[in-house]
Amino acid sequence: MVPPSALDVRSTTDTQIATFSDKLSVNGVAARRSKAPRIAGGIAAHASSDMFKSPGHGKPKAKRWDHRLSEESLARQPSSLKGAAKYLTIPGLISLGGGLPSSQYFPLEHIDIKVPVPPHFSEQETKESGVVKRIGKHDIAEGKSIYDIHVALNYGQSTGSAQMLRFITEHTEIVHHPPYKDWQCSMTVGNTSALDIAYRMFCTRGDCILTEEFTFSSAAETARPMGVQCIGVKMDEQGLLPSHLDSIISNWDSAAHNGAPKPWLLYTVPSGQNPTGATQSKQRRRDIYRMAQKHDIYILEDEPYFFLQMQPYTGPNAPDVPPPSSHSAFIDALVPSLLSMDIDGRVMRLDSFSKVIAPGMRLGWITASEQIIERFVRHSETCTQTPSGPSQLIMFKLLEETWGHAGYLDWLINIRLEYTKRRDNICYACEEYLPREVASWNPPMAGMFHWIKIDWRKHPSKEGKSMLEIEDEIFHAAIERGTLISKGSWFRAETGNPGDDMFFRTTFAAAPADQVAEAIERFGTALRAVFHLEAANGHGQ
Amino acid sequence: MVPPSALDVRSTTDTQIATFSDKLSVNGVAARRSKAPRIAGGIAAHASSDMFKSPGHGKPKAKRWDHRLSEESLARQPSSLKGAAKYLTIPGLISLGGGLPSSQYFPLEHIDIKVPVPPHFSEQETKESGVVKRIGKHDIAEGKSIYDIHVALNYGQSTGSAQMLRFITEHTEIVHHPPYKDWQCSMTVGNTSALDIAYRMFCTRGDCILTEEFTFSSAAETARPMGVQCIGVKMDEQGLLPSHLDSIISNWDSAAHNGAPKPWLLYTVPSGQNPTGATQSKQRRRDIYRMAQKHDIYILEDEPYFFLQMQPYTGPNAPDVPPPSSHSAFIDALVPSLLSMDIDGRVMRLDSFSKVIAPGMRLGWITASEQIIERFVRHSETCTQTPSGPSQLIMFKLLEETWGHAGYLDWLINIRLEYTKRRDNICYACEEYLPREVASWNPPMAGMFHWIKIDWRKHPSKEGKSMLEIEDEIFHAAIERGTLISKGSWFRAETGNPGDDMFFRTTFAAAPADQVAEAIERFGTALRAVFHLEAANGHGQ
Repeated sequence: MVPPSALDVRSTTDTQIATFSDKLSVNGVAARRSKAPRIAGGIAAHASSDMFKSPGHGKPKAKRWDHRLSEESLARQPSSLKGAAKYLTIPGLISLGGGLPSSQYFPLEHIDIKVPVPPHFSEQETKESGVVKRIGKHDIAEGKSIYDIHVALNYGQSTGSAQMLRFITEHTEIVHHPPYKDWQCSMTVGNTSALDIAYRMFCTRGDCILTEEFTFSSAAETARPMGVQCIGVKMDEQGLLPSHLDSIISNWDSAAHNGAPKPWLLYTVPSGQNPTGATQSKQRRRDIYRMAQKHDIYILEDEPYFFLQMQPYTGPNAPDVPPPSSHSAFIDALVPSLLSMDIDGRVMRLDSFSKVIAPGMRLGWITASEQIIERFVRHSETCTQTPSGPSQLIMFKLLEETWGHAGYLDWLINIRLEYTKRRDNICYACEEYLPREVASWNPPMAGMFHWIKIDWRKHPSKEGKSMLEIEDEIFHAAIERGTLISKGSWFRAETGNPGDDMFFRTTFAAAPADQVAEAIERFGTALRAVFHLEAANGHGQ
Repeated sequence: MVPPSALDVRSTTDTQIATFSDKLSVNGVAARRSKAPRIAGGIAAHASSDMFKSPGHGKPKAKRWDHRLSEESLARQPSSLKGAAKYLTIPGLISLGGGLPSSQYFPLEHIDIKVPVPPHFSEQETKESGVVKRIGKHDIAEGKSIYDIHVALNYGQSTGSAQMLRFITEHTEIVHHPPYKDWQCSMTVGNTSALDIAYRMFCTRGDCILTEEFTFSSAAETARPMGVQCIGVKMDEQGLLPSHLDSIISNWDSAAHNGAPKPWLLYTVPSGQNPTGATQSKQRRRDIYRMAQKHDIYILEDEPYFFLQMQPYTGPNAPDVPPPSSHSAFIDALVPSLLSMDIDGRVMRLDSFSKVIAPGMRLGWITASEQIIERFVRHSETCTQTPSGPSQLIMFKLLEETWGHAGYLDWLINIRLEYTKRRDNICYACEEYLPREVASWNPPMAGMFHWIKIDWRKHPSKEGKSMLEIEDEIFHAAIERGTLISKGSWFRAETGNPGDDMFFRTTFAAAPADQVAEAIERFGTALRAVFHLEAANGHGQ
């Protein structure tokens, strides 16, 4: 419960972090595993990242966050029933304790999946050269695997299975090398659920939290019914501005916010932010982290689009940048995460398979300090309980037993190049079809979204239409011409504060390339009609 | 917000309910579907039980529960982004709206499952005569199915997929025939999650809720950190006593409960209650429902063990009761649910596949009035979001495309008979090995649990040990002899109130029959040692 002191701000240079002797790489996984406990393959077996990660000699331990946890989170007790599990290790013991059904009544003999083999990742290649992998009911007993239907379809731990937790922990270490000692991971049923739990762990009705001024609408919609209001931090093309973050906190007027205390929880999407597509640079992240240290802020780093970081944008007439030449070159090409700078353990990072494998898996994971993971797992035990067994089985068979860490990085490089093509395609279409008189944008460096600013003050309205009225006019003019795009105002963090500027969000993730170009052309036509501009180059109506 | 009036208590006789003309049976499903909308198979397509259920002509509408919903639940708004989905039906529209990834990047070509064919359900039969069913990536486009990887692995609705929602809605109607008009279902990621959401929909910090005096420990552990205390209703062998429920509410002393208002939310497990194994009779359920009407109570009917209702217990020396001769005889043999009596729409029923298919599926569903389902779905959208796609795909392929409703009922009859054997086995072992001088029990009619009462006052302690000390002594005496059982005190609804009687919970669901008998024999030996009883019939140490 000790409040932090300004004297207690830690700092670590790149050099210091680099000297930690145990930076795990793909090639080091086998050696690391040889020192880890064997995965026994029991039902609902306890597991922790500590079993699988490097020891982290010389790294500092995370700070304590007792003063930031909610009454709800602090009140959580371990389950008596789960406490009895410690007796299960007694040889010869017969348990009539836990109410687990017998797997003899699981009506599944096996599951086969057909999946691609690196580097032949396309749908057509998967059909032609993919491999079929079998998941049997009793593969563990038969010595065929360390994970099977018998285990995955019974109850499990809220951390996720040991089998998947190992892969995720190693992957996290390979990519982020968290610079403190007692970090851990827990699986989740996706970032939406993880965020709901995180808010309830940290927030109390009446609190305010900090977010980008335009934010993932679901993140705000999750907070508001809890009585938690978002305070929007101003942004530029690199996302949120640390100077404005500083200003909000330094000048906090509690009375103007219904008595809310100074906010100290920051929700941020550093890469390919939804909806703006902004990606924080390395220096911007360092500045944000430094500001978090100054004001004792805890950070929720939501990173579904981290691996949708793309190749640099070179424009339609310049050659493409060559793809990363190795796994380490690929990792080095990614902007480092806040987790990778987190010397204090003040970051809960939310990762998801939704954007890089499939959203319907409902699988993700968080990384945070041991204290925070423990509270998160206690919470999960009484809500989501454990991620889906079939989802975990399929992901394990794919990531662990088919691809391995190297193959998964190959897949992520493939996704990077695919999204680069999609991003380039929408940018080319914007350059060709949108009227530069009113529309401007930055080519996104990551994510699924292209954010288009509209200079609404050029609207020829005689009646003095408001910005929101003009936004609505453009939205419907686009629909009339056959294009659905999202209004920027839907993403305003602060309800009732429309801001000064108008934006539209488009996504290049879903529609095929020719349809994206067609939709942008229609949007351009709509803009020209609304703003009474002449049709350019024969395009438009 | 109108408070209910005692004059407004509805009643419906069996005869009245039976005269509703549209009681759906397995054989009526095909005709019902011929009148339902076609399932189009789009990504994240909206669906509602209203599309799939009988029209319910002449049935009353559910009451409104605005006065019972929490501030959190009432504050939930529909998402702006999801509101834009209505434009997607415009022909020729290209959407750059929603951030859905393209299925071309889902690395799965197909999933095959091998499953049993009725009536050959055993593991050995499944191996020998099971069928292999293929789930393709683009089965919908190829005309092979109405559900595929392309749809199930993308984002989905919080109700669950239309494909699974149809099956669940029909199944619910076939089994329960809810007697009001505007009931609906929504899928869940299991009853633990559904209960967490339900508490947050109905409760506010400082509230008290009503539960059985011994209750599912996770149900109490979910409530307590929210600041919601459980008030235990006394039980007999048929579960909670309506007279005590009446007494608690009629004599409520708010000051004695930190100012909590009179409780009006009842959490109950009517069939094979955890931990007591008690099953409420039909008359008991009617009396509980009548009491709920009297006090304007809303009921959470948690029924994971509903289909673990077993054949009548006849003892070791009498012939077994013949199994149900038909699907309708099977359904008639089940004690009717509170949902089936719910003329007011005051019940949220929680169903789960965990105990009858597999817990790792993390799939269940709730049934409640349209108003409650709508609030539940809004809540789910910002936490669990949607159940696992692989889980839904496998269940759809099994239930809908392999078994159908008839085959699923065959499976449930099979489960009934299997659990009957397991229940009989543990009861025979108790009759043989437990000392009747101190141990007593009722053979359970449903569920996974056998609840053994211990007459602790016969303990020979000279030091005047407390009940909890003697419970702990017995618990450890059993562990020393190689049997793990659960202490009854772990399940007390009211923390700090140990009650007057001592119980232990055993489960017959998990261990093989010979091990269950061995474990009970060891427990008998432990009891004899603790109570200084002579070894019976040469058994024991």
